[in-house]
Amino acid sequence: MPEQFAFDADDDRMARAAWSRIAEPRDQDAARLIRALGAAEALHWLARAATNWCDPPGLSAGPRLRAGLRRWAPRLENLDPRRELEMLARCGGHLLVPSDPQWPQALAELGDDAPPCLWVRGDPAVWERQCVALIGARACSSYGQEVAGGLAQHLSAEGITVISGGAFGIDAAAHRATLAAHGTPVAVMAGGVDRLYPVANSPMLEQVCHTGAVISEVPPASSPMRHRFLSRNRLIAALAAVTVVVEAGWRSGALNTANHAIEMGRDVAAVPGPVTSPHSAGCHRLLREGAVCVTDGPEVLQLCTPLGEVDDGSTARGHVPGLLDGLDPAQARVLESLPARGSAELAGVVRSSGLGQTEVQAALGFLELGGKVQQMWARWRRA
Amino acid sequence: MPEQFAFDADDDRMARAAWSRIAEPRDQDAARLIRALGAAEALHWLARAATNWCDPPGLSAGPRLRAGLRRWAPRLENLDPRRELEMLARCGGHLLVPSDPQWPQALAELGDDAPPCLWVRGDPAVWERQCVALIGARACSSYGQEVAGGLAQHLSAEGITVISGGAFGIDAAAHRATLAAHGTPVAVMAGGVDRLYPVANSPMLEQVCHTGAVISEVPPASSPMRHRFLSRNRLIAALAAVTVVVEAGWRSGALNTANHAIEMGRDVAAVPGPVTSPHSAGCHRLLREGAVCVTDGPEVLQLCTPLGEVDDGSTARGHVPGLLDGLDPAQARVLESLPARGSAELAGVVRSSGLGQTEVQAALGFLELGGKVQQMWARWRRA
Repeated sequence: MPEQFAFDADDDRMARAAWSRIAEPRDQDAARLIRALGAAEALHWLARAATNWCDPPGLSAGPRLRAGLRRWAPRLENLDPRRELEMLARCGGHLLVPSDPQWPQALAELGDDAPPCLWVRGDPAVWERQCVALIGARACSSYGQEVAGGLAQHLSAEGITVISGGAFGIDAAAHRATLAAHGTPVAVMAGGVDRLYPVANSPMLEQVCHTGAVISEVPPASSPMRHRFLSRNRLIAALAAVTVVVEAGWRSGALNTANHAIEMGRDVAAVPGPVTSPHSAGCHRLLREGAVCVTDGPEVLQLCTPLGEVDDGSTARGHVPGLLDGLDPAQARVLESLPARGSAELAGVVRSSGLGQTEVQAALGFLELGGKVQQMWARWRRA
Repeated sequence: MPEQFAFDADDDRMARAAWSRIAEPRDQDAARLIRALGAAEALHWLARAATNWCDPPGLSAGPRLRAGLRRWAPRLENLDPRRELEMLARCGGHLLVPSDPQWPQALAELGDDAPPCLWVRGDPAVWERQCVALIGARACSSYGQEVAGGLAQHLSAEGITVISGGAFGIDAAAHRATLAAHGTPVAVMAGGVDRLYPVANSPMLEQVCHTGAVISEVPPASSPMRHRFLSRNRLIAALAAVTVVVEAGWRSGALNTANHAIEMGRDVAAVPGPVTSPHSAGCHRLLREGAVCVTDGPEVLQLCTPLGEVDDGSTARGHVPGLLDGLDPAQARVLESLPARGSAELAGVVRSSGLGQTEVQAALGFLELGGKVQQMWARWRRA
């Protein structure tokens, strides 16, 4: 009975949040059910069928759904996504669902392998820039860290969002260099975004939340289990236009991410290294299997830009003529303080404009009325 | 008049030796003439036409042959291949012509770019083994020398003839390692085989003569000129089944050899190196252009051996056993769902794993049999 839910199960956001707790990542049976019925109706059916088996409305359930029911029903107990949403809100996060304009369209390519929602801490619109994944092994060399840092710096300077997995080694080097270059870092977690993992990286990942985003497909309080790492890898591959493996041993998990990218027909690149270094063995393996050899940032950028559409980047850096026409000095300053792409919190605009909060709020109000800026979840962006 | 030659110009060997002195390497007009008339008849025509222009027998000569005549006629003066053959004999060499059984059949692919003969010091039958070219820049790093040496050693142990150019750097490292491994080295000279070049390498090249072969398409006493180096490169590419560039700068001459191999449809491989090393820039350039990435001897051998006849070596690589090795995904998930310390009820494992109860029970049974979990008073714990 629908009445059994303490929360508003008819709400699509709430129902999707519930499903992300009920079904583990890559549960395609759940995805198909949600696709067929909608998340809310699928949830109502699950509650009914868990008590007394019945077919979902309009469907005749086969053995897969019956097996699914056995996986899902135990998790109905104490189910209340309001709890996870509160945990998310407490750390300043937002839930993204496919109907949101900021939902990353790149995930559509995953089909029924796409998550029902994303738990996001930070800027929910980091996907508006082109994304490159810089990934690699936890066990890496100083050479690998140096190269990852150099690539992240170059890509950041070119306005590319740099995605990685938040782990030690190459991932951390990529995140740190992106932060240092005032770029847009994105970390995809295998566990909940409330428990930044690994713990030793949590100060860095907190910074990632502030300038980019930390995201996960599993709700807060979920622990990072092995299969969730493997599932998480497909999200990195799907979100990035190009996946670059910087350093990886012969059996590194980074190769799993690369294989997801290959399966999706995305560009996969690998950085070569000394053949005497086991840290590069996985990269060389990829090169032998057809990955593109990249040795510097411009070579990665070549893969990002569609042939013949090479942009000199001038428009991405905010030199739009007439942008500031008709604005008073404070308004102009506030508008210029907003990032060319992405969004900023009020506190950030106050800091970067050097104006008082009241002045900034007034200017933002004026700019919003004039259609020059937009507000979304307490973050501001250029329109 | 044929009578003007002091040597037996009707002899094919003698006539080809004469042509290798008359025409510079890659003189395709000379090659076409020899193909049409035979080397001896072509020589007779040249002697007649140099005095009084006449068409070659059965041919109506166009402007190319008239231009050829102007190149070749000056070299008729003092022409006597017996002199060069004596010089060759003095250093223990032999002339090879296409009708000899030891003639390398691989040169046939050069068509009219093939030399009329080869001047060989050493074993004239080194081509009976499969040949791999290990080449690279004179200016190289200790890394490149080490890798070249390792590859040469492995290929030698596998009975492969190792070809290179006798130069400093990568070439010398390949030759030296082949000698040390009691393999079969071949050095292709740009000048005459009597004057081993560079002089500092001549003790090493003398050894190459004794265990393998030093060869050239130009006769003894010819000096190593720049265009002869470039022509020599095509011979290396043609003689080798696979050309491996070990280390090469962005504009290294080794890339010229690689390009010859590519044009002939031969396999070209490149050894990766640090992207921070200019000595590997040419190799990475080749990798980006489609060369095969090779990191060790077995990978080079794979290119020599027809598909499906070689072990890929993956089983030889070490693998550190981990907690979840050998488990299927459900078993791994269940094992991870158990608390690191303490124990859990079946219902708890079902909830935290997100799997159905039947699946969890099956996995626990398997794990218990494998000694990975223990059951105590209806609670489960890691072993």
